Amino acid sequence: MTLPERQNKPILVRPRVYIGKDISIGPGKIDLLKQVETMNSISGAARVLGIPYKRAWLLIDTLNQGFGRPVVMTATGGKKGGGAALTPLGKHLVEYYDALEDRLNSVAKQELAALGSLAE
Amino acid sequence: MTLPERQNKPILVRPRVYIGKDISIGPGKIDLLKQVETMNSISGAARVLGIPYKRAWLLIDTLNQGFGRPVVMTATGGKKGGGAALTPLGKHLVEYYDALEDRLNSVAKQELAALGSLAE
Repeated sequence: MTLPERQNKPILVRPRVYIGKDISIGPGKIDLLKQVETMNSISGAARVLGIPYKRAWLLIDTLNQGFGRPVVMTATGGKKGGGAALTPLGKHLVEYYDALEDRLNSVAKQELAALGSLAE
Repeated sequence: MTLPERQNKPILVRPRVYIGKDISIGPGKIDLLKQVETMNSISGAARVLGIPYKRAWLLIDTLNQGFGRPVVMTATGGKKGGGAALTPLGKHLVEYYDALEDRLNSVAKQELAALGSLAE
């Protein structure tokens, strides 16, 4: 039943990290923060990710509330009207998450292969 | 700014595993499979987890479609009318996911501590 073309399915693990009861950080929020940084805009990031602006805003606000300080800062007014960027906290969050993700994918090859074998 | 009671926030990582393009297995689906096994019922599991039955059913069906074979089997008729249980594939999925989760939490202490420090 092992089809050759299925043996090489890429297997990837992405972490969801829970800190205490109030903070959870998973792929959705991290990808959003990265897009906010790229697009300099929450609405632009939401558009790229195909999620409603309100959901993007709520995800960011959930992080702000959980940490008790903002992960994204927004500017109002000016020529372009608005614009958003990550705070140092937001940048660290992305940086540490990426480091964790890299490590998990490198150390868990055996366990990931076991899961992958179920799809063969 | 480091409050003593915040230093000991438990930090936990739960994996989301992507196998090829069609399969993603994260905490939500795994917790659902575990509850199906405990409750012997999809609707019972949905109730325990506080999610709509339809969502539970869709999560399971997504796994069934992704693997091309069922992760849950249901019985119809009989005194209790219905009842659900994990297939061997479903059981392996839970088992291998748990092994992965244990390993990730034990090997990534440093990276998790870095993330946890942001919440202090």
